Amino acid sequence: MEELKNDRFLRALLRDPVDVTPVWMMRQAGRYLPEYRATRAKAGSFMDLCKSPELACEVTLQPLERFPLDAAILFSDILTIPDAMGLGLYFAEGEGPRFEHPVRSAADIDKLGVPDPEQELKYVIDAVRTIRRDLHGRVPLIGFSGSPWTLSTYMVEGSSSKEYANVKGMLFDRPDLMHKLLDTLARSVTSYLNAQIAAGAQAVMIFDTWGGILTPRDYREFSLRYMEQIVAGLTREADGRRVPVVLFTKGGGGWLEIMADTGCDALGVDWTLDLADARRRVGDRVALQGNMDPTVLYASPERIRQEVVTILESYGKGSGHVFNLGHGIHQHVDPEHAAVFIEAVHELSAPWHQ
Amino acid sequence: MEELKNDRFLRALLRDPVDVTPVWMMRQAGRYLPEYRATRAKAGSFMDLCKSPELACEVTLQPLERFPLDAAILFSDILTIPDAMGLGLYFAEGEGPRFEHPVRSAADIDKLGVPDPEQELKYVIDAVRTIRRDLHGRVPLIGFSGSPWTLSTYMVEGSSSKEYANVKGMLFDRPDLMHKLLDTLARSVTSYLNAQIAAGAQAVMIFDTWGGILTPRDYREFSLRYMEQIVAGLTREADGRRVPVVLFTKGGGGWLEIMADTGCDALGVDWTLDLADARRRVGDRVALQGNMDPTVLYASPERIRQEVVTILESYGKGSGHVFNLGHGIHQHVDPEHAAVFIEAVHELSAPWHQ
Repeated sequence: MEELKNDRFLRALLRDPVDVTPVWMMRQAGRYLPEYRATRAKAGSFMDLCKSPELACEVTLQPLERFPLDAAILFSDILTIPDAMGLGLYFAEGEGPRFEHPVRSAADIDKLGVPDPEQELKYVIDAVRTIRRDLHGRVPLIGFSGSPWTLSTYMVEGSSSKEYANVKGMLFDRPDLMHKLLDTLARSVTSYLNAQIAAGAQAVMIFDTWGGILTPRDYREFSLRYMEQIVAGLTREADGRRVPVVLFTKGGGGWLEIMADTGCDALGVDWTLDLADARRRVGDRVALQGNMDPTVLYASPERIRQEVVTILESYGKGSGHVFNLGHGIHQHVDPEHAAVFIEAVHELSAPWHQ
Repeated sequence: MEELKNDRFLRALLRDPVDVTPVWMMRQAGRYLPEYRATRAKAGSFMDLCKSPELACEVTLQPLERFPLDAAILFSDILTIPDAMGLGLYFAEGEGPRFEHPVRSAADIDKLGVPDPEQELKYVIDAVRTIRRDLHGRVPLIGFSGSPWTLSTYMVEGSSSKEYANVKGMLFDRPDLMHKLLDTLARSVTSYLNAQIAAGAQAVMIFDTWGGILTPRDYREFSLRYMEQIVAGLTREADGRRVPVVLFTKGGGGWLEIMADTGCDALGVDWTLDLADARRRVGDRVALQGNMDPTVLYASPERIRQEVVTILESYGKGSGHVFNLGHGIHQHVDPEHAAVFIEAVHELSAPWHQ
């Protein structure tokens, strides 16, 4: 492996000094880029794109050709694990993800095994290897997975949902089944992320997209606990460096303190929190990643720069901040506005690191 | 007006002693009730139902015939004000609300006036009078409005939205226009709620459905500030009693302290907070209304009762709690489960008030 030329991102996650605040964008390889849309059209379906290591590598690297980003993130879907378990993931045109075989009963859950990442998920692990090779050490590569709770919501509902009637029904009335499902998922995610790390991922992020629909009690018991189990089971060093782990619970701003107690290195933070408050709450236990409102990228270049200033001031002096959006970049954003954002972070953050 | 026979709800909002915890449900007059669906079918469209005072009264009272609820809430839509401003509200089949004439420019905003509630919104005020008459003082009647910020999101987008590109674009790049629009809306909401109070509403609630998509800075400047302006302008006494004001910002759990500073009497709280924490944070400044996860109503009667116990324990001893769901009741809930919930609150809360 070639030596890492820009390690700002990894250093900031471990709260080691940096020259400027590192920056990347959730969903930076995505539909707002015309070159992504071209590759996507060439691939056929979205899952065909995910399942081709060469094409997944191509789209992963596209935003790095345009912008001086400080990290690359594996291009994949969060639902690869349930698909590998045999649930039959597909995307209906104009709708979200769906499963042919949702999980509803004890028998359905008993049938689920832990996928072997080098077999059923080999296309993902091959993508990690390919991307790592083609990055030539420019920036670190982030691997990722959905959280067990988040995966379970799609598996039990069979699709994305507004009401979560089925999965909440199982949680409330059959917590035993829910725990069995979540334990199988936690072991699967651990194995999957460790395979990504072995293949070259230099940091990993766990996306808990639906943890925020739970009560604080249920969040601890059904989401956080399994993320903690995963963090404890991860390979924490690769290439002689620590592999940082980032947890991101959408809508989880009330729970930063208990998230920081899981042993992770950093927390993703959305824009409904001030970074100054978040930093005070987590102290020096974890770094913070975020938290610009993605809709700021619809605003004028001057307004984008002003928002970057506000967020840098809110975080304050010193390392421990990875600049990011508080959610994925929207598909209708002008890539030139993303360029303004990324350049502003590098240019305007230097004084905060002197 | 007939004397109020059950004033638990009003007393709890003012933190005066009660015998048991009062309870009502957001969207208690709604699609989960077969009798509602029958009236809705008879009315024609949803807006035809809202615009008929007799039918709006009929559906408002339906849940009170089934359940020993401690309050009735006016049946109406949150978008009546923009409709009265001439934006042309309609509901496309299977979609959310839409406006024929969205507000996008300075000229659009200049054209907007403050509707006269007894003229353009007379159907709402007549519904309040009709409901108050037909309630015969059984329980108090709650009036309501959307918050200025929430109304503005629909008015600028022209529909419900996932990205809020237009309204956030205006907020970021034309804050002057945004403030002008919000000020017109705040004056309109004040006048509208005061007309509801004059017509018989005994408490009012402001629904800030989309305040939670803002940063803390923007929430203060573009949502909270205008709710504070409304609270300051409301008639606070009617029939010799104080008219309590409840604020509810969906996803606003991080902002309870500053919401409590607006001069309102109570805050709506969703299920992502523990009531014990919420109560500690607001102290004795306001009462709390909430906060059971609506999906608990899909669970078994035993599990519903157990959740009621957990929430009563979390709030603890004394008045200042109105039991409610943390969001509207879902349309697929079995009304028998709603009955279990409401009875459980009355039965199980008595010891907490001794």
